[in-house]
Amino acid sequence: MKNNKEESKNPMVYELSPSCQIEDLEIGGNYEGKITRVEKYGFFVSLSKNIYGLLRTRNPKEAVGDKLVVKIAEIKPYKGKKDVDLVYSKIKIDSDYEKTVLKRNVKRTLITDLSNNNMGRNIAIQGEIIQIQQTAGPTIFTIRDETDVTWVAAFNEPGVRMYPELEIEDLVEVLGEVSLHGGKIQIESELIEKLDDAESKELEEKISDAIDKKAEPTDTSMIIEDSETLNKLRPKLANAAKAIRRAILDGRSILVRHHADADGICAGIAVEQAVVPIIKEESNDGDAEWHFFKRSPSKAPFYELEDVVKDLSYSLEDVERHGQKLPLLVLLDNGSTEEDVAALRHSKVYGIEAIVVDHHFPGEVKDGRAMIDDYVDIHVNPYLVGGDSQITAGALAVELAGMINPEIREDIKHFPGIAAVGDHADSVESDKYIELAAEKGYSRDDLDKVATCVDFEAYFLRFMNGRGVMNTLLGLDDKKRQEELLDTLFEESERRVDIQLKAAIPNVKTEYFDNGIQFNLLDVEKFAHKFTYPAPGKTCGYVHDKIVQEKGEENPILTLSHGPDFGVIRATEAVNKMFGFNLNEVIIKINEDIPSAGVDGGGHECAGSLKYVEGLADTVLDAFIDEIKNLKK
Amino acid sequence: MKNNKEESKNPMVYELSPSCQIEDLEIGGNYEGKITRVEKYGFFVSLSKNIYGLLRTRNPKEAVGDKLVVKIAEIKPYKGKKDVDLVYSKIKIDSDYEKTVLKRNVKRTLITDLSNNNMGRNIAIQGEIIQIQQTAGPTIFTIRDETDVTWVAAFNEPGVRMYPELEIEDLVEVLGEVSLHGGKIQIESELIEKLDDAESKELEEKISDAIDKKAEPTDTSMIIEDSETLNKLRPKLANAAKAIRRAILDGRSILVRHHADADGICAGIAVEQAVVPIIKEESNDGDAEWHFFKRSPSKAPFYELEDVVKDLSYSLEDVERHGQKLPLLVLLDNGSTEEDVAALRHSKVYGIEAIVVDHHFPGEVKDGRAMIDDYVDIHVNPYLVGGDSQITAGALAVELAGMINPEIREDIKHFPGIAAVGDHADSVESDKYIELAAEKGYSRDDLDKVATCVDFEAYFLRFMNGRGVMNTLLGLDDKKRQEELLDTLFEESERRVDIQLKAAIPNVKTEYFDNGIQFNLLDVEKFAHKFTYPAPGKTCGYVHDKIVQEKGEENPILTLSHGPDFGVIRATEAVNKMFGFNLNEVIIKINEDIPSAGVDGGGHECAGSLKYVEGLADTVLDAFIDEIKNLKK
Amino acid sequence: MKNNKEESKNPMVYELSPSCQIEDLEIGGNYEGKITRVEKYGFFVSLSKNIYGLLRTRNPKEAVGDKLVVKIAEIKPYKGKKDVDLVYSKIKIDSDYEKTVLKRNVKRTLITDLSNNNMGRNIAIQGEIIQIQQTAGPTIFTIRDETDVTWVAAFNEPGVRMYPELEIEDLVEVLGEVSLHGGKIQIESELIEKLDDAESKELEEKISDAIDKKAEPTDTSMIIEDSETLNKLRPKLANAAKAIRRAILDGRSILVRHHADADGICAGIAVEQAVVPIIKEESNDGDAEWHFFKRSPSKAPFYELEDVVKDLSYSLEDVERHGQKLPLLVLLDNGSTEEDVAALRHSKVYGIEAIVVDHHFPGEVKDGRAMIDDYVDIHVNPYLVGGDSQITAGALAVELAGMINPEIREDIKHFPGIAAVGDHADSVESDKYIELAAEKGYSRDDLDKVATCVDFEAYFLRFMNGRGVMNTLLGLDDKKRQEELLDTLFEESERRVDIQLKAAIPNVKTEYFDNGIQFNLLDVEKFAHKFTYPAPGKTCGYVHDKIVQEKGEENPILTLSHGPDFGVIRATEAVNKMFGFNLNEVIIKINEDIPSAGVDGGGHECAGSLKYVEGLADTVLDAFIDEIKNLKK
Repeated sequence: MKNNKEESKNPMVYELSPSCQIEDLEIGGNYEGKITRVEKYGFFVSLSKNIYGLLRTRNPKEAVGDKLVVKIAEIKPYKGKKDVDLVYSKIKIDSDYEKTVLKRNVKRTLITDLSNNNMGRNIAIQGEIIQIQQTAGPTIFTIRDETDVTWVAAFNEPGVRMYPELEIEDLVEVLGEVSLHGGKIQIESELIEKLDDAESKELEEKISDAIDKKAEPTDTSMIIEDSETLNKLRPKLANAAKAIRRAILDGRSILVRHHADADGICAGIAVEQAVVPIIKEESNDGDAEWHFFKRSPSKAPFYELEDVVKDLSYSLEDVERHGQKLPLLVLLDNGSTEEDVAALRHSKVYGIEAIVVDHHFPGEVKDGRAMIDDYVDIHVNPYLVGGDSQITAGALAVELAGMINPEIREDIKHFPGIAAVGDHADSVESDKYIELAAEKGYSRDDLDKVATCVDFEAYFLRFMNGRGVMNTLLGLDDKKRQEELLDTLFEESERRVDIQLKAAIPNVKTEYFDNGIQFNLLDVEKFAHKFTYPAPGKTCGYVHDKIVQEKGEENPILTLSHGPDFGVIRATEAVNKMFGFNLNEVIIKINEDIPSAGVDGGGHECAGSLKYVEGLADTVLDAFIDEIKNLKK
Repeated sequence: MKNNKEESKNPMVYELSPSCQIEDLEIGGNYEGKITRVEKYGFFVSLSKNIYGLLRTRNPKEAVGDKLVVKIAEIKPYKGKKDVDLVYSKIKIDSDYEKTVLKRNVKRTLITDLSNNNMGRNIAIQGEIIQIQQTAGPTIFTIRDETDVTWVAAFNEPGVRMYPELEIEDLVEVLGEVSLHGGKIQIESELIEKLDDAESKELEEKISDAIDKKAEPTDTSMIIEDSETLNKLRPKLANAAKAIRRAILDGRSILVRHHADADGICAGIAVEQAVVPIIKEESNDGDAEWHFFKRSPSKAPFYELEDVVKDLSYSLEDVERHGQKLPLLVLLDNGSTEEDVAALRHSKVYGIEAIVVDHHFPGEVKDGRAMIDDYVDIHVNPYLVGGDSQITAGALAVELAGMINPEIREDIKHFPGIAAVGDHADSVESDKYIELAAEKGYSRDDLDKVATCVDFEAYFLRFMNGRGVMNTLLGLDDKKRQEELLDTLFEESERRVDIQLKAAIPNVKTEYFDNGIQFNLLDVEKFAHKFTYPAPGKTCGYVHDKIVQEKGEENPILTLSHGPDFGVIRATEAVNKMFGFNLNEVIIKINEDIPSAGVDGGGHECAGSLKYVEGLADTVLDAFIDEIKNLKK
Repeated sequence: MKNNKEESKNPMVYELSPSCQIEDLEIGGNYEGKITRVEKYGFFVSLSKNIYGLLRTRNPKEAVGDKLVVKIAEIKPYKGKKDVDLVYSKIKIDSDYEKTVLKRNVKRTLITDLSNNNMGRNIAIQGEIIQIQQTAGPTIFTIRDETDVTWVAAFNEPGVRMYPELEIEDLVEVLGEVSLHGGKIQIESELIEKLDDAESKELEEKISDAIDKKAEPTDTSMIIEDSETLNKLRPKLANAAKAIRRAILDGRSILVRHHADADGICAGIAVEQAVVPIIKEESNDGDAEWHFFKRSPSKAPFYELEDVVKDLSYSLEDVERHGQKLPLLVLLDNGSTEEDVAALRHSKVYGIEAIVVDHHFPGEVKDGRAMIDDYVDIHVNPYLVGGDSQITAGALAVELAGMINPEIREDIKHFPGIAAVGDHADSVESDKYIELAAEKGYSRDDLDKVATCVDFEAYFLRFMNGRGVMNTLLGLDDKKRQEELLDTLFEESERRVDIQLKAAIPNVKTEYFDNGIQFNLLDVEKFAHKFTYPAPGKTCGYVHDKIVQEKGEENPILTLSHGPDFGVIRATEAVNKMFGFNLNEVIIKINEDIPSAGVDGGGHECAGSLKYVEGLADTVLDAFIDEIKNLKK
């Protein structure tokens, strides 16, 4: 008998909770009751939903509905059941007594100890509700304690949500019988009750500690161990790994969003490879990897409002329809910049935990924090520790994936090499990653081929993640198939680039400015095929590369491809090194000079985009060209 | 024994229906039968699939397959079963006798009386088939009688559709055993038979009456009780409420389509709030609210062919795949105009019932009917009763929702205020709704903020209804979260409007015409960012508002924003009041003057759009400007 | 007792496979075993997972884990079970003996012989795994033998994939008990074991032969029996029919992709009508027709990379998530040309079988093969046998459908007539098909109406197949509804064409060239409404038709509608017949003359499209006009 009795001078009266059975009554004890029937020979008093007794007295004056305190006189067997005889208690119902709620005392079983051996036994478990599903029949509660997870069916009227007062994250005690449903252990519940605040807090901590311990990454080593930047990022990566592991153990889904290019896709698939096996292991649901892991490319290189409204719509429906928790959001090669603020702030309103692993310039860094840090929980970005974008998001995500799940580290060891080549990353780390990829048999040309094909395929996949084909391209699948697919796509990609170049190259206008810069101008709207691969940005890159290849990388060459209201800029490093050219600064200047043109854009120093309103295109482009002309060594 | 016998001079012969058992046979009665086995000592006659008897006669000359009339001589127990002895009847099989089909007479149980107490009992129910689902195992029929709904499983070979002759809306008698499936009561059917025409008709009427009674709204009061227009619309709204309630009870799904702006979204969510709880109540399916209620925004302010083909595709698949009925279509802030005809006519071909609740100008109204009334079943529009568009669709839908489900009326009382501010509605009713919203704590600024944020969010949601986020924005969810989300979105919306205005305002060309009108012209294609928020129409509004704010609302000011093949017009009320300007008339005139320009468009008197072919843009815009110049007081 | 014993001089020792039971042991036989417990009175030897015996010996020196050969001394009943007494064998474990793996010998039951009568019986089946599904409970294997298909549940820990070593296409023996699950027969497996190579090969051949026989079409007659071209195509069509039937029997899904016009849609629905009933028949899954048949329109008239990445994404997810096989791809009115190569090569990397039934010009035909034949398995195209595009894909697909499933031939007999009129096909065969449609009550005008409405509806359906509405339009549904829908859509289509023509016709510029050709030029971007029906290509057709109608079909008239970077060409047959005009040749010439314009396109001799970069539009159009001017009779 579990009771909350404390020492007290007042008399003690029990109130029976619904879980109690006759066995829990104490002869001589005082109990609160309510009269439910009155006869000439006495009246019946209900002590709980299930238990009542008879208080014999001639022509009682009491009425149905009266409350009173009674004393248990005797419990005697009668026709296979037990009868309870009551007598009046000296304690009056309205007097000042100490009341104790009496619960049925079933020794708690840890969920990990449930097994086919308990089948048919009445047990008690305690835990946190992590999912509630209303089926056509019973309501199903997913319950976790500090050892494991199980399912509890609550049943009364079919299709009716049982215990509507219970919500996700409540801590409860379940009394019920161990049974099997569809082959898995399920508790057919007799009673589910919220624990009181003290018990809740205690159990919550126990569970949280247990999960925290389990969530802690066991191995925070990295593929590259001697990079200063990476070593500084190690604690952040370890925190991110723990947060992701913790979310899985919490029964939250993992929602990965990544930039739709080779770098972003390597990042996304690295995390997918790490997370999915753990989800499978932690869940008894055969479809768990599909329900609890989602990965989507973002078209823009940032997390947009278009993305977040879609993600929230689906997530909130999952909460309401499938009783899921809100997901953990993981942004890869995305999420660090001012442009991500609106969407991340939006998801934060719903309390969604967000992790960003990115290498885009996050704006001013102060005390190791950037603007976006106000809206995300963990932010991993080389700029935060003095590095820059030359370590790719793909590399960071691979290091993260290795901490989440060390077993898959070897499988994805070549991803950072693909990401580095795809993103033209130029750093000691990137070189090392490329060397490591060579150990797995990928030459630099192979990496370029994979990156090109991943980009090419992503162009056609649009909003789909293309898990199957991407896994083939990245070599997670059959090797021979990988080779065949790379050949097929690379050939087709080359063919399409050739078509674009055939139209574009003859229409490039080249000027040699007095300062020595070779300036190439292309109207990409007019002299390239539209709505096809390669799109304007990539076309500019191919045009620029072709010219640079002829003239030499060491020369200051700048290519501007423009449409009616946008431009794409690519320049050799020489333009930056010799002239101090920084696209972002030029854009800020033009925007100040021509405020009504709505000039926007940016990117890296020597590669990026420019936006403006169509009506002032000439003015803006002229201003841009003037800036280049006027650059001085 | 139920028989359809009527008084007749001809002899009476019974035909046994498959449901009959030996107990139903009458000694001495005449029965049709067919010989199924012939022996030396007589032959066996099958009276039904289940019942046969032996007619003893030496060396019979009859052959297997012969039909004949027999008489029941004796029914005697034999080895725990019963044997039927037959004799020849005097009635010949080909003679002119009165035939009665004999059905097993099990007293009909009303569905409402089925309960766990009937478990395992053989019962008969009668009702209408409202859904047929083929599972991998049995075929499941959903049956409704005048009291309730239940499910009947018919089983023979797994996965085989049983009773292929039965269709939705057939009236049937089911004999079977009460059982439980997945926790809900289900009849394991022994036999399902169509009722005959007379019985069908009688039961159909009984069911229809019962449902009709249940569908009737119990409370047709409105939030605003003293509006002449609303009072005139009350019967139409009550009819609409009844039709929607009736559809739910009929097991039809409710398909809501609404305009994707604040007014339309308030309307859609008002109806959603009213309908979903009833669907949940009426169904035992935990997912019912998702299967039987669908709400989608329409991008255009009318129901387009793009919309109807999508809706029909899904609905017809639901019919074929899930055995559902076709839905009830509810168009909100949409559906009243000539532009809706094609789509509504299309859905009408499939017999889909349609309700329109709209406040757009429905064209000429004659005898309280507009053009669209030929294609919809219930049409609620202020114009039909002498009102106009200044009562919003949101307000009408809220009044409708209150009649459908009075319990939620208070929750959505502030919606009409949001709709009124969002739609710039100017009427006594709108003012009252705004006052009522104040009672719930929404100032006019608050309403504007909500409307702006709903519009902003809808822009990014596109084809999704965004139920979760919209509920937050409209205050149906956590209040604190509402406030945070409003702040987040409003700030971002303002920021984006500022960017557009920064580009647009300096490029607005203003002329002061001799007649006193200030005319503002903006090339929105050239001097605003494209494919972003705010879109051209809204941008024109913001530009116009900004100018009017400076110059004063009382002055005649007209703003025309145009792209290559469209224009958006906004004018102060003064242009209409002082000059009698009506955009719709101007468009008609220009279309007549330049027939080859394909001029189209319209809207309100002082706000709307203009479409034309790109090649005649200058001609059309010049003509429009001339019209404005030539306006006279 | 099944053993693989062969004559040998070495002693014989048995190894028990897990399936064996005590009954399978032979007194006196020698068996391999492993010591699992050692006691003072002897030790216990496990002969398999389930069987062990006691070898009594005082103070044995053997240790747990030791392997040895034992002899069966006695098998005696003990407490309702059986005890096995062992003695030492003379054969040493490391000596050179002949080993035989002993399997439990249960007589194989053919799947076709499983029925409710076997319920609860232990049986053995052998077959191929054609699907593996991991449920929350057991793993479900779909097994096929040479007679039928059944399901096998393997169960141990819930949600855990059993027999991870087993894959789709493995040949196995299943020992288990016949039971029912959800109403269908299912084997509760006790053991699933791969057959050895010899057995596998034998059974595989047996199954393959049985399926092959069943897949063979029984009736390869055609609706038109006297066409030379069709007769030459008959073997190819029969092969295609067999491949499709075979894929269904293999448990592969059928993925139909077709051009989104009347011809392509007729083709797609013809195959759908033929295939779906067979899928239903072959599967016990009530949803089989939705899981195993997919039909999607392709926007372009070829199979694009956009299409294949989508198809592969879904198919590979079906493989991984639902344990399905990869589908059979059927391309209709699509798939024959150079433009289809990239996508088909892509799907081939995954080993997807592809059938093409098309009538588009496949490029050079050599030895009956065209370019695409390198990438598809069966290619049906009139050009391959000396025919041309005047026999529609719809007609070919209807003949194919008739061979797949002769029962539906009559239902779709009028489809080729619709396709012929929709595609303006002009051939003896097309005329005959139109006559045959007349037999079903479709006049040429009716066929035109249906084709127009199918095109119109397809425009709005975009990526949806619109099965429900299309079936109505094509007359597979209620006839009255068909008529009403045709009237509704035809009227609306006409209305919209009128709007386009009203804008376009007055802006057509007509010139009469010296060579006698009437040349009509329309800027369709400027003088037609954009993003609406009819789209530019169709608009050009309607404009051309209207002009030709006035001037007479016999005259050489050519209409060119162009936008900024594309043109659509329509010419009367006279231009080809009198002047030898062939659009494809003209395009090749212009592309050579102006290589930087990126000229592309083509189609039929007198109808097709032209693409170029916007910046060289004038140059290209001038060149085109010059070509027309310079045409000589």
